[in-house]
Amino acid sequence: PPVTTPPRTDPAGDDATVTTMTSLTTGPDPAGDDPGGWLLDLMRVMAPHPRSITGDGVRATLADVAKHIPLVVHEVPSGTPVLDWTVPREWNVRSAWLTDPTGRRVVDVADNPLHLLGYSVPVEARMSLDDLRPHLFSLPDAPDRIPYRTSYYNDNWGFCLADELARTLPDGTYTVHIDTSLTEGSLTYGEFVVPGRGEETVLVSTHVCHPVMANDNLSGIAVATRLAATLAARPQAPRFTYRFVFVPGTIGSITWLARNRDVTGRVHAGLVLTGLGDRSAFTWKRSRRGGTTIDRAVELVLAQSAETGPGATGEPARLVDFSPYGYDERQYCSPGFDLPVGRFGRGQHGEYPEYHTSADDFTFVDADRLAGSYRTLLQVLNVLERDRTWRNLAPYGEPQLGRRGLYRGIGSVMGSKAYEMGLLWMLSYSDGTNSVGDIARRSGLSFDALADAADALAAAGLLAPA
Amino acid sequence: PPVTTPPRTDPAGDDATVTTMTSLTTGPDPAGDDPGGWLLDLMRVMAPHPRSITGDGVRATLADVAKHIPLVVHEVPSGTPVLDWTVPREWNVRSAWLTDPTGRRVVDVADNPLHLLGYSVPVEARMSLDDLRPHLFSLPDAPDRIPYRTSYYNDNWGFCLADELARTLPDGTYTVHIDTSLTEGSLTYGEFVVPGRGEETVLVSTHVCHPVMANDNLSGIAVATRLAATLAARPQAPRFTYRFVFVPGTIGSITWLARNRDVTGRVHAGLVLTGLGDRSAFTWKRSRRGGTTIDRAVELVLAQSAETGPGATGEPARLVDFSPYGYDERQYCSPGFDLPVGRFGRGQHGEYPEYHTSADDFTFVDADRLAGSYRTLLQVLNVLERDRTWRNLAPYGEPQLGRRGLYRGIGSVMGSKAYEMGLLWMLSYSDGTNSVGDIARRSGLSFDALADAADALAAAGLLAPA
Amino acid sequence: PPVTTPPRTDPAGDDATVTTMTSLTTGPDPAGDDPGGWLLDLMRVMAPHPRSITGDGVRATLADVAKHIPLVVHEVPSGTPVLDWTVPREWNVRSAWLTDPTGRRVVDVADNPLHLLGYSVPVEARMSLDDLRPHLFSLPDAPDRIPYRTSYYNDNWGFCLADELARTLPDGTYTVHIDTSLTEGSLTYGEFVVPGRGEETVLVSTHVCHPVMANDNLSGIAVATRLAATLAARPQAPRFTYRFVFVPGTIGSITWLARNRDVTGRVHAGLVLTGLGDRSAFTWKRSRRGGTTIDRAVELVLAQSAETGPGATGEPARLVDFSPYGYDERQYCSPGFDLPVGRFGRGQHGEYPEYHTSADDFTFVDADRLAGSYRTLLQVLNVLERDRTWRNLAPYGEPQLGRRGLYRGIGSVMGSKAYEMGLLWMLSYSDGTNSVGDIARRSGLSFDALADAADALAAAGLLAPA
Repeated sequence: PPVTTPPRTDPAGDDATVTTMTSLTTGPDPAGDDPGGWLLDLMRVMAPHPRSITGDGVRATLADVAKHIPLVVHEVPSGTPVLDWTVPREWNVRSAWLTDPTGRRVVDVADNPLHLLGYSVPVEARMSLDDLRPHLFSLPDAPDRIPYRTSYYNDNWGFCLADELARTLPDGTYTVHIDTSLTEGSLTYGEFVVPGRGEETVLVSTHVCHPVMANDNLSGIAVATRLAATLAARPQAPRFTYRFVFVPGTIGSITWLARNRDVTGRVHAGLVLTGLGDRSAFTWKRSRRGGTTIDRAVELVLAQSAETGPGATGEPARLVDFSPYGYDERQYCSPGFDLPVGRFGRGQHGEYPEYHTSADDFTFVDADRLAGSYRTLLQVLNVLERDRTWRNLAPYGEPQLGRRGLYRGIGSVMGSKAYEMGLLWMLSYSDGTNSVGDIARRSGLSFDALADAADALAAAGLLAPA
Repeated sequence: PPVTTPPRTDPAGDDATVTTMTSLTTGPDPAGDDPGGWLLDLMRVMAPHPRSITGDGVRATLADVAKHIPLVVHEVPSGTPVLDWTVPREWNVRSAWLTDPTGRRVVDVADNPLHLLGYSVPVEARMSLDDLRPHLFSLPDAPDRIPYRTSYYNDNWGFCLADELARTLPDGTYTVHIDTSLTEGSLTYGEFVVPGRGEETVLVSTHVCHPVMANDNLSGIAVATRLAATLAARPQAPRFTYRFVFVPGTIGSITWLARNRDVTGRVHAGLVLTGLGDRSAFTWKRSRRGGTTIDRAVELVLAQSAETGPGATGEPARLVDFSPYGYDERQYCSPGFDLPVGRFGRGQHGEYPEYHTSADDFTFVDADRLAGSYRTLLQVLNVLERDRTWRNLAPYGEPQLGRRGLYRGIGSVMGSKAYEMGLLWMLSYSDGTNSVGDIARRSGLSFDALADAADALAAAGLLAPA
Repeated sequence: PPVTTPPRTDPAGDDATVTTMTSLTTGPDPAGDDPGGWLLDLMRVMAPHPRSITGDGVRATLADVAKHIPLVVHEVPSGTPVLDWTVPREWNVRSAWLTDPTGRRVVDVADNPLHLLGYSVPVEARMSLDDLRPHLFSLPDAPDRIPYRTSYYNDNWGFCLADELARTLPDGTYTVHIDTSLTEGSLTYGEFVVPGRGEETVLVSTHVCHPVMANDNLSGIAVATRLAATLAARPQAPRFTYRFVFVPGTIGSITWLARNRDVTGRVHAGLVLTGLGDRSAFTWKRSRRGGTTIDRAVELVLAQSAETGPGATGEPARLVDFSPYGYDERQYCSPGFDLPVGRFGRGQHGEYPEYHTSADDFTFVDADRLAGSYRTLLQVLNVLERDRTWRNLAPYGEPQLGRRGLYRGIGSVMGSKAYEMGLLWMLSYSDGTNSVGDIARRSGLSFDALADAADALAAAGLLAPA
């Protein structure tokens, strides 16, 4: 897309001359015939990289993303102060395993990155089972699953394993081999900007620090990548500037915020993406303030687009008020920034038993659900792009639509009724205080039908941007 | 009623000296012993006139109304610009019929005005059934009913007939005879003003353009006439000026608005009336803004007066938000005017199968339902008249009502409890921000009981107009 | 407690230096091991005094209260103007009885103070049953109960008795003996002030004019006394000044208001107490304005503390909007004062059949319910004391709690989760607009848990008073 800077007089790209915006969701599916397959393929490519909040796993993941969008990769040195935090040492894993008294290898990080407690310090030691126990993590309630555990800011080491294995370990002397490095390296994150006609920014953020797991968080990385690719491929620059950030959780968004204080002042709307592939209904976690641009856009789309098709749950989407616990919305919505950012996903962290275990694998996610998430998010971006406030230029009585060719005669075909209602609603409520989205909420008519009606009325000289 | 202009210092007639207003709804029924019969009689007299948006049918209808109230009839010449529209040519029908190949008269407007497409141009022609078909309108889903159809602003002609007849027409040559005139005449509407003690105006509007049909709209014309007659017969001038307008739909209200821009600035409340005789529960369609004077008055009356008696449905009244589709509220509530006007009726347009067909006849309406509509509307006007905001002159602690004779001793008779509660509620909430209607809504006590309590407290020097 | 006046610069005692306040509800039960027993004992001591709105019964009752708190007793002479009223003559009873034609004593006030109509004038007379009947009061629907009746402001006399007795009285001549006095004496009320660190005042009011009855109103007097004793025994002066008033109903609160106009201007919150011992769920009658400090505190406590234990109903507490009928909240909430005062109790006046009859006795109240009322009210005072608004001093991103020792590592113990959530909620919403109570309502976390988290964050330098 063109990278020319739009004129400064119109920060939101909301100029009166460009009044017609094609819907992002019409025409051939912008993600191709099989977006679900595309997303799964990308997730499978990224799955093996040993992700953590720093290190080569993140770099390899961002390199996969960069095959689809021209990602800019940032490296921030260990020790850099970021808000109240400091960028930690970089962590990398060469090898790690545990052998039992008979020499049998109990677990090996080469089999599954979850086996190693994240940020384990290097260890070469022999010890009794009793001394080892505090370093073993398992799930008695889900004995066949490996848990996901980390210890980023307390030096520690450990192995995560299935409880059915942990419970049967024989007494004796164990050998611990953990060949990791904690060095003055850097924290890595990626960023891709789709310039808009204005500088007001839509932020799309996803974390890139979870190893292996498919729903949390490969699905978020893949969907964010596809949304970015779709927007970048549009012939017309979007109204807003879109900024896609791929950051390690917590410390990554804190680092991004510390380095982008200028951007935070012009965030029009934002979404944190994760958990987009499981079979639950959608969950929208509202921004801290609630009722912001993004809350209204997402809630409208969710109200108007019940998910259908193969695998759809038929359950209504859930709207959840902000709480200061979860993913990076915690940082974007911290009271100093208080950005209009919410979180979009399906099942919520901690609510499904596969969460943060080895059971969050490729059997847990579904191509149709991934495609449904992608298409719904595209509708959300479409509402952001097309929502605007108009003013009726002939507000005294109804204008005579018939003589302007906007109204049919007798026996009009089915479907035109919704269109004619769209004309009447736009004229009635375009008093400078209601946007297209507001009118969609009030009327129950579809957002795109109203936006199309507004374009037709503007072409006939009956509406002007407010 | 006296037509003297009240002094300009009190536009709403809300002077402090006139504090006691008799309820409009007490005493002998102001519509006589049988308001339902009275309304049906007037509807039957008006039924045969061939109403349309212009022409002699409207004039004859207004002449019937003028037998009960001193109506002023306005004629606005064809071609007059009114807001975004132009007054159309005047349409009159001398005769119109269709004969089949055997010479049998298939339909004749002399049998039912609905048979002729409204505003049909003159035609004398012979044509095949195939050429005729596009000019025949019937209802396959209601094969025994004649639909009501018009083509005001596209030159066209046609016949409306029962589908069971339309389906059995033999092939061959048909003779079309439509002897109508479209001339540079005028649009006709009627207006009657009941001067009030103030100039703030209550608008009551009903359309007069629908042929034959009893519920839509003979019932509206009749009830508006009776309300006007009742108000005009009151010994005391009302607080507000009441303006009853009898206009053809859409173009009539647009014409009235274009010619009464000064009045629109002082509309305190307004009602569009139609569909008052069918057996559905009441429907209140709110004004565009909602929560205006008229919305609050109607919603209070509907909440406090469940309809009872013979034929009552027992269903709760429906409150419907404004939508820019319906009757003349579309014009009064267009965003440039945005008047506090809603629509009062029973079944809603399009929701009952008899709507806009020959089945909306005198079997479809009911004397008791007509009387119930009339009495409920009188209660609404009563609330408008008596609702005002008072100020407690002894606001520190409760005043001692006993020594002022306002409170009973031990063993007080039943019923006085409600009266004493009315005194306490009026004293407690008359802080200058709550009107009698607000206090009725909050307390659940009846509006008239509270208004009576306020009058008693004012007489005792404990309340004054705020 | 210390009675030194706090410095004037901090009317609410809300100084930044005192940030940690111990919960009123933690530690050993401040009412001792058996508050229910304590309350019942005091109620039994006060029961026999012949209370009315004036007279020696009130004085004896206040003397019992003064054994537990240093009550100041005020005497206001008959004839004193108080707001719209005048302090009435003082009424005392020496003896009163009625004998039937056979000389049998039908009723005697010595058996039950309810037998004499309150404020009966002195009478010595013989009369027929017919002449006597208008002076006999009974309850046909509850024939075994003596009703409670008064005639304060109309000179009258009478006897109250069981209807089963009244119905069987033989014809003949009856002897009426009523030896009462109505003299230029005084109205008596008690007041106890617990000075706070600030002058902003919490008002706790209970009436002291009902004879004999246990729930209405011995329970209110006892619970108010115990709350006052508990607050006075605290080692630290409370944040607010607490003013406990023991007044005869209506005329007493009117007298107090007339004499304390300066105090009314600094009432931070207030409660009228009565009906605290019956077995109904709690009822909170909101202040006239609703949503005031006291409404929010009580509604939070009721939402968070479902009553449990022996005899608990399991019913949810009831929240009732203000109405100008009830107890002394009528006076405190009269529109001139409009204080943030509501009424706390269990069953409401008029809703339980024992109300204002001899059946409101010690079988009708329950030690556990009394203790539950007391403890719940202590929680309300605790919320008033501890609720304040903080400001996050590190609002950009989340502060790193781990390095401040506020956050646990892996495998944190159960329970600490709620504590950590409390830290996050306090940080997220302490933007200067939300108090601890607001955050409790929003998060569903317990008020004391959040207040404790706020204290810990303040100690770590992360929060400061807003």
